[in-house]
Amino acid sequence: MPLLVVGSVALDSVETPSERRDDVLGGSAVYFSYAASYFAPVQLVGAVGDDWPAEHTALLRSRQIDTAGLEVVAGAKTFRWRGKYLPNMNDRETLEVHLNVFGDFDPKLPATSRQARYVFLANGSPRLQLGVLEQTPQAVLRVADTMDLWINIQRDELLALLRRIDGVVLNDSEARLLTGDENLVRAGHRVRELGPKFVVIKKGEHGAMFFGPDDTYVLPAYPTPNVVDPTGAGDTFAGGMMGYLAESGDLSPAGLKTALAYGTVAASFCVEDFSLERLKRIDRDDLNRRVDEYRRMLSF
Amino acid sequence: MPLLVVGSVALDSVETPSERRDDVLGGSAVYFSYAASYFAPVQLVGAVGDDWPAEHTALLRSRQIDTAGLEVVAGAKTFRWRGKYLPNMNDRETLEVHLNVFGDFDPKLPATSRQARYVFLANGSPRLQLGVLEQTPQAVLRVADTMDLWINIQRDELLALLRRIDGVVLNDSEARLLTGDENLVRAGHRVRELGPKFVVIKKGEHGAMFFGPDDTYVLPAYPTPNVVDPTGAGDTFAGGMMGYLAESGDLSPAGLKTALAYGTVAASFCVEDFSLERLKRIDRDDLNRRVDEYRRMLSF
Repeated sequence: MPLLVVGSVALDSVETPSERRDDVLGGSAVYFSYAASYFAPVQLVGAVGDDWPAEHTALLRSRQIDTAGLEVVAGAKTFRWRGKYLPNMNDRETLEVHLNVFGDFDPKLPATSRQARYVFLANGSPRLQLGVLEQTPQAVLRVADTMDLWINIQRDELLALLRRIDGVVLNDSEARLLTGDENLVRAGHRVRELGPKFVVIKKGEHGAMFFGPDDTYVLPAYPTPNVVDPTGAGDTFAGGMMGYLAESGDLSPAGLKTALAYGTVAASFCVEDFSLERLKRIDRDDLNRRVDEYRRMLSF
Repeated sequence: MPLLVVGSVALDSVETPSERRDDVLGGSAVYFSYAASYFAPVQLVGAVGDDWPAEHTALLRSRQIDTAGLEVVAGAKTFRWRGKYLPNMNDRETLEVHLNVFGDFDPKLPATSRQARYVFLANGSPRLQLGVLEQTPQAVLRVADTMDLWINIQRDELLALLRRIDGVVLNDSEARLLTGDENLVRAGHRVRELGPKFVVIKKGEHGAMFFGPDDTYVLPAYPTPNVVDPTGAGDTFAGGMMGYLAESGDLSPAGLKTALAYGTVAASFCVEDFSLERLKRIDRDDLNRRVDEYRRMLSF
């Protein structure tokens, strides 16, 4: 089943304690769609400027990602982010953000995307995300990410969004900010009371928590000794999760848990190199094998 | 099989964002032995002053814990610790430490404890811990905890200890301090290269990592919405783990993983009230039931 993602498409500059990369391919919709493409046909909707290297679009297309909704805006510049990771490689500082074309992004979905059954609203304002929901009335699974910025400046719109979606994916600090509760188990339940059927709290290197109508659980991150660049791990997680759901169509509690495992494993590959470099070197068998290892790791 | 623990016995004063308790029962050997007593006969070796309330000894004995090695030193005072938890309930500040009788503690084991097959060296200096090893030549499983203090001031003795024990249990920050590696997966492997057959890194609310000759894995903490006081959770974890191992005698990779699950679940009860209050209200069936839930939580 095709999967639609709407979100940021970016050129990232990343500093880690040992290395640095400038203007590499990034953005929430890019990481998401690349990871999801191992599972299901993906439609990417976003906007870039005329500084956007055509090779990036070619790379996405090489994974059969439909880029008909990737608008190239003449005279505009692509969204840029620059960040620096602390030595623990889990916390980071944002050094620069230039929204550029993403600042005015008001997506008009292509006709095929308006039929989407699986919809992921990646990084973007709740107002923008609500606009996408209006254009996808046939969706059977609508999941959104959000950010501290929107919790602070578009809280009402975010609350309206939460009442209309099936699932939400957010960071631990965002869950605390949104609910005012420091305990993540309680925070997760409280977010669910705001509307969505399920809530996923991402904890970076510490894994993810799930809150659904039937169950609450925690899954650890897959332990990799080789963390090179965590940028995009959260979006890759969401891409693996939603990709598996779109592929399997299994929205049962068991299906959701398996989807979280695939998301976890996809994210563990993402962090093993800069940008999409590690994801470019894997195939579906690598994902399956690591999911099998992960399942054994958690069995006793 | 009896299980010997040597470590601190304390009166703790704890402040959380909402409550406070003064001079309550605590100490690494106390939490450890109480949790382990659900699985195996425990021998506790430690020292207290004559300010020690006899009811605490009675409580330990009510769980069939052998307190023959709990020395009451006349004219001395019991070890006291005062700490304050930050709003996240995971990080804490130590406000006061009075080692008192624990400062000169140089355990002479009772004859029965010298036969011990399962030995846990809880909080104490590596010098003290090495002294206990000398007195327990028949041990088949020797596991030690350590602390940042000892890594800083008795590093050589700690390295000597690590070469002589089967397993070590330490916090994430301590693993980083000991190895100088920020990545916990690499840090765990590096600690193992220092001698012990297995290493357990405790991550507080984020669970625990295991590094053995055959496998590396992460287990999340059991998610409880009700974190009242995390004091003693690490020692309770070790008590559940070692208790299960002493009971089952199963030191295989599968046995060790099940032991970590019991430790995780024992710790999840510990944090649900101050001091030993929550542990006092459970029985072995409660531990088994929560381990079953935890196993289901991690199955997909």
